[in-house]
Amino acid sequence: MSMDQDLHIGALVFTDMDQIDFTGPFEVLSRLPGAKFHVMGKETKPIRDVMGLILTPETSIAEAPSLDLLVVSGGPGQEGLMEDEEVLAYIRAHVEAGRYLFSVCTGALICGAAGVLRGRRATTHWGSLHLLRYFGAEALDERVVVDGRIISAGGVTSGIDGALRVAALLRGDDVARKIQLYMQYAPEPGFNSGHPKTAPAEIVEAARRETLQLTQRREATAMRHARRLGIVAAD
Amino acid sequence: MSMDQDLHIGALVFTDMDQIDFTGPFEVLSRLPGAKFHVMGKETKPIRDVMGLILTPETSIAEAPSLDLLVVSGGPGQEGLMEDEEVLAYIRAHVEAGRYLFSVCTGALICGAAGVLRGRRATTHWGSLHLLRYFGAEALDERVVVDGRIISAGGVTSGIDGALRVAALLRGDDVARKIQLYMQYAPEPGFNSGHPKTAPAEIVEAARRETLQLTQRREATAMRHARRLGIVAAD
Repeated sequence: MSMDQDLHIGALVFTDMDQIDFTGPFEVLSRLPGAKFHVMGKETKPIRDVMGLILTPETSIAEAPSLDLLVVSGGPGQEGLMEDEEVLAYIRAHVEAGRYLFSVCTGALICGAAGVLRGRRATTHWGSLHLLRYFGAEALDERVVVDGRIISAGGVTSGIDGALRVAALLRGDDVARKIQLYMQYAPEPGFNSGHPKTAPAEIVEAARRETLQLTQRREATAMRHARRLGIVAAD
Repeated sequence: MSMDQDLHIGALVFTDMDQIDFTGPFEVLSRLPGAKFHVMGKETKPIRDVMGLILTPETSIAEAPSLDLLVVSGGPGQEGLMEDEEVLAYIRAHVEAGRYLFSVCTGALICGAAGVLRGRRATTHWGSLHLLRYFGAEALDERVVVDGRIISAGGVTSGIDGALRVAALLRGDDVARKIQLYMQYAPEPGFNSGHPKTAPAEIVEAARRETLQLTQRREATAMRHARRLGIVAAD
């Protein structure tokens, strides 16, 4: 892809998403040279993320231009999009046209429901990693997974790291480095609790307990999609 | 502060801000137990961040409830707020009431113009660190600085680290750890270019060159405020 060529990037926003799955990548990717960033919804009316933040799409997926890169974020509202045949067909057509797809967090489940993760390596939020096999994907517990033109990031803030990786893929390492410098992205989390492997056991248990219903709902949805897609995933 | 007590948190959004200075902290702080997060503007009409993202305040600073924590973000639009006596008086009254103030990136310059950084240790975006002395502050090149109830984060993504620190201050380390786990905040930037100390020299030079006009404008504004505040900052 030429550095001079305009790059059309689009990201879906939807009710009960997790806003930073989108605003993290927006921060990075809107700064790519020649990029036009399209904030997209099913419709153009404002939505609220799961914690109530208002986000306003400026185009509908029906009216968006042909995209070079589609960003699919996650969050509890991913369930709704997994049942939306217009959204699933849109993602499928995008991938079949050979364009880049970047999923963040449980956005991977939406992509899985669209059928585009079959036979691909992918990642998602740590709490949903076990669900990827229902979509025929090989789940990797990595922060960012690149499988051809399908890039997936782990949970939530992984989208920032994934977006820097996408920036490098599309525009080269030095462009990614300059954006990283601007963003002063030299993280110091203060605690070492960002993954179940490193967080204190009682914190992990509490988190699993509090999200149990959401996880069970996602499991039921994933199994239903596996049947629809004709994927055999041993339990 | 009791764990049961409701926590009113407010954050200013404004034209030409950098959205992740706000959306990063929102991600963390909206998840504090008992928190009510108020997205505030001068008015309640939507604004666009410096890259065009639409953000919608839900209350004006005139109508917002008394806050326990005020978040002041930055970005190029910080210049406008530094000239806005209503905003500056609002920040001043908040600090004089003994409440927590959390500045992100060049939001520190707004707080400086409000006069509340005099004699305090603080930080800001690496490109503006040299300006803090015009507000009577001691500039520290650290990711997060805590000086009593005034917390400041460095540039842009530092706001996520700063917000986790604030979360721990207000609600304890385990609350911060649980939010970090949910957010899967175990960053892997991929490049080591997040600070001028580690980025390749030519990347730093290019970044300084491209932001030269903005930096010069900020210098002029800072010097004008220094005179207004009666602060002698040797050049």
